[in-house]
Amino acid sequence: MHNGRVSEAVERRGRGRPRKAHGAGSTRAAIVKAASEEFVERGYEAASLRAVARRAGVDSALVHHYFDGKADLFAASLEAPLRPDRVLEVVLSAPRGEVGERLVLFLCEQLDDERAAKRMVVVLRTALGSGPGTRMVREFLAREVLSRLVALNEGAADAGLRADLAAAQVVGLIMTRYVLALEPVASATPAELARRVGPVVQWHLFGAPLGA
Amino acid sequence: MHNGRVSEAVERRGRGRPRKAHGAGSTRAAIVKAASEEFVERGYEAASLRAVARRAGVDSALVHHYFDGKADLFAASLEAPLRPDRVLEVVLSAPRGEVGERLVLFLCEQLDDERAAKRMVVVLRTALGSGPGTRMVREFLAREVLSRLVALNEGAADAGLRADLAAAQVVGLIMTRYVLALEPVASATPAELARRVGPVVQWHLFGAPLGA
Repeated sequence: MHNGRVSEAVERRGRGRPRKAHGAGSTRAAIVKAASEEFVERGYEAASLRAVARRAGVDSALVHHYFDGKADLFAASLEAPLRPDRVLEVVLSAPRGEVGERLVLFLCEQLDDERAAKRMVVVLRTALGSGPGTRMVREFLAREVLSRLVALNEGAADAGLRADLAAAQVVGLIMTRYVLALEPVASATPAELARRVGPVVQWHLFGAPLGA
Repeated sequence: MHNGRVSEAVERRGRGRPRKAHGAGSTRAAIVKAASEEFVERGYEAASLRAVARRAGVDSALVHHYFDGKADLFAASLEAPLRPDRVLEVVLSAPRGEVGERLVLFLCEQLDDERAAKRMVVVLRTALGSGPGTRMVREFLAREVLSRLVALNEGAADAGLRADLAAAQVVGLIMTRYVLALEPVASATPAELARRVGPVVQWHLFGAPLGA
């Protein structure tokens, strides 16, 4: 995914600035470490890529070389198993009537990997951690994920609540299937879960007002 | 709730055994501490009240005096803000068509208290913690909560999955409203949430097979 020559060129360009010399691998690692600190201290909203570069002692260009913006860097700093904003990009390209099922199917397929599931636990643990961790994850979700779900019902008074409740069903599925590993949900196939949970996501997002 | 005289009598009766003398408050605290250790080491299933008494250096009768069984002691050891098995007791006494709404309404009303919400974070943090914490919470949920939801569809092949998915929606609601405090779900009224999420719980538990 990374072009070695570009990487070397950019590193060479940035070489005047670094406090210490990094190889390609350790440069990336240094940026991720600096990003973790920046996100914890300042939250997702206020964190800046420039400040991350400064903390890591590298040129800003290098941060942009390794990472596709703040969301990508955030995912890397949490060792997130997937980028929720990317998942949504794929899912929201589906016809409106299929968004719920596609979301559940895609998410389960991505997380049905022991390593991915373990990393998801780390993310959730961060969300449940002390103040800064919770704020960080909340701001990330609001900015990168929920805003896109809200846009699906643009202008509607309950667009925000619909987005939150769709997220609630998905977060709960992740908790029960991957974290608590409750049976039988932990062993159900992604297709079965898409069939049962997809319509609920759909309902939260687009359903007629309930109980009316 | 506790009758002082019974308490004294039971403590007097048990007095031959304790390694150290406890006042009523510290006896209870010593039992809770011992229970935490027992649950962490042995999990919810294998933990026994007798072993808790032994660890605390008190007579078993005292454990039964202060706590209404293992679920109660577990809730106390986690400082749980509510006993999920008790919530279900109330909710499952509702007519079948109202279980979902009642569950969401009751749960939100119970947790809409800053202290209760903070203690819920502790429980979820335990669930997300190292191996023993996760196992402990999983075993508790399976034994005390999910089994009752499964019983609602006794004999049906998908009774377990329906129970798990209903739990998933509720757990996700707790995560988004109380832990992440996402807006607007954090500020929505319990009645509004019951109206929107209740039918989903109902649907997971009793709905026609979806997508059929």
